[in-house]
Amino acid sequence: MTTDYAGRRVLVTGGLGFIGSNLAIRLVELGAEVTVADSLVPDLGGNRFNIAPVEGRLTVHTTDVREAADELVEGQDVVFCIAGNVSHVDSMSDPLLDLELNYRAQLAVLEAVRRQGSQARIVYAGSRQQYGRPRYLPLDEHHPLEAIDVNGINKTAAEAATLLYYQVHGLPTCSLRLTNTYGPRMQMRHSRQGFVSWFVRQAIDGEEIELFGGGESLRDFNEVDDVVDAFLRAGAREAAVGEAFNLGHPEPLTIRQFAETLVEVAGSGSLAERPFPDDRAGIDIGSVFANYGKIRGLLGWEPRVGLWEGLTRMVEYYREHREQYW
Amino acid sequence: MTTDYAGRRVLVTGGLGFIGSNLAIRLVELGAEVTVADSLVPDLGGNRFNIAPVEGRLTVHTTDVREAADELVEGQDVVFCIAGNVSHVDSMSDPLLDLELNYRAQLAVLEAVRRQGSQARIVYAGSRQQYGRPRYLPLDEHHPLEAIDVNGINKTAAEAATLLYYQVHGLPTCSLRLTNTYGPRMQMRHSRQGFVSWFVRQAIDGEEIELFGGGESLRDFNEVDDVVDAFLRAGAREAAVGEAFNLGHPEPLTIRQFAETLVEVAGSGSLAERPFPDDRAGIDIGSVFANYGKIRGLLGWEPRVGLWEGLTRMVEYYREHREQYW
Repeated sequence: MTTDYAGRRVLVTGGLGFIGSNLAIRLVELGAEVTVADSLVPDLGGNRFNIAPVEGRLTVHTTDVREAADELVEGQDVVFCIAGNVSHVDSMSDPLLDLELNYRAQLAVLEAVRRQGSQARIVYAGSRQQYGRPRYLPLDEHHPLEAIDVNGINKTAAEAATLLYYQVHGLPTCSLRLTNTYGPRMQMRHSRQGFVSWFVRQAIDGEEIELFGGGESLRDFNEVDDVVDAFLRAGAREAAVGEAFNLGHPEPLTIRQFAETLVEVAGSGSLAERPFPDDRAGIDIGSVFANYGKIRGLLGWEPRVGLWEGLTRMVEYYREHREQYW
Repeated sequence: MTTDYAGRRVLVTGGLGFIGSNLAIRLVELGAEVTVADSLVPDLGGNRFNIAPVEGRLTVHTTDVREAADELVEGQDVVFCIAGNVSHVDSMSDPLLDLELNYRAQLAVLEAVRRQGSQARIVYAGSRQQYGRPRYLPLDEHHPLEAIDVNGINKTAAEAATLLYYQVHGLPTCSLRLTNTYGPRMQMRHSRQGFVSWFVRQAIDGEEIELFGGGESLRDFNEVDDVVDAFLRAGAREAAVGEAFNLGHPEPLTIRQFAETLVEVAGSGSLAERPFPDDRAGIDIGSVFANYGKIRGLLGWEPRVGLWEGLTRMVEYYREHREQYW
């Protein structure tokens, strides 16, 4: 993997956010010439501290991809499109903003690359939210895309456009449909981006973790280093071009199991059952986990980090850097 | 049908365009209190002359739905969302504009209705373009939505949002997936909205009609009066709520058959075979026609106008009003 990125020019949009910053750090370590772009929209998760380990070794543009797409993509060999809103709840309260961040921004990047006649590899960060309520489990990539929130609709449109630009214009694009990702550098200031980061904060703070509906729904959890590995493969391997891939984990767990492991790892926090709040019940999708056989077969990707190990690393990170995230 | 609309307040977006104006005229005749909104974006098809038969008997706002959604939907009983770009070719050359017109505008209407706590019926004008290349024919509503142009992606997103607002917020929405609609009041100034209007113009002008690829692809053609009837049913019948419906025709014809009938009806024009131009080959979908059993079963809709009769009416209209459209 080292040789794939050494000396290559790489753009990471959303590069000050959770997954983007972890990817950017890894790319710098691999010898890539890295530019990160991040609009630092409040609450989305962008945090300058996230790139502290490589500060000074990459270029940072605090700009909106929608405005600066042409300038940002110029001369890049690989473009990782990770900018976006991942809050399903926020997408329902401000759907037009979600459209801007999750779809229009991606279309602006695609158009910029097309207009420049560039052959940059483009990897889009999709979501298992695109599938909606599972008709069967595990979800494979043939499952219909029937999003049940605006976020899922916009990600579906953005991914469709990304793959269309391969089919029609020949741009070498692909998409990863992410599942629940956890690890260092998630935002910790609010709970609207899903339960994972919020549970970790509550555990560290010794608070009561609320399990909506008992926490019996199954999920597949990917540690961010594994997700970074998937992005690196997707941006380098020829077999990725034109494809959408699920991520996933060999061992789906209930949300309750996740929380129990977390409390044990942290040595603090406790669990409490709660009914679903009104604003979430309508967009909850029950159990959901994905078949990742396609990316394993075509790109050789498999998750390597187990939950205990991943949560240990995550809790340690936030105990050390609490003041940067709380 | 008359009693369904008499005295009701109805908004038609895109109401100066082809389908919108035909619907608005019919609604006025049925005794509805009609407002049409149209941004008159050049080339989309809006034409003040389209509503000449009812001028003075409806309210016209030449405004952009994206800006004025709140004001437009206030107090309406039924909202027909027909505004949009129907040019697949234009959607590829200016995808961001297509996003604005076909998706953002619809989301703005939905949000306005939701914020007002209105229970207005909302009927969205979708497209068979949402299906992409048919996996089987005739297309039914279970066929996967795999659009192969930006227009189809945006219509898919807009329809998904429209139906989501029923599922999550309880707004009484539905969608009609239109096929090739023809008849009076289509724009005639350029060929980028599909072959139908352009062929009619060429026939009337005694020109050579170009059949790309020999014109052997099958299509289902709906005369606009039949399409208006479908909208009226969709906006009034309870069984429509939360559903997407195909339109279609019992007798799919090749594009060549359409053109031959047209030349015969018009008594002018001729046919010529041509290879596909580069900018269209990538987004052509081959034969496509739809199963309309769902709307027949649930709303009792069936097309009544045959091609000969419809084209006769259309050619007569344009011969009489040529100067308003050429």
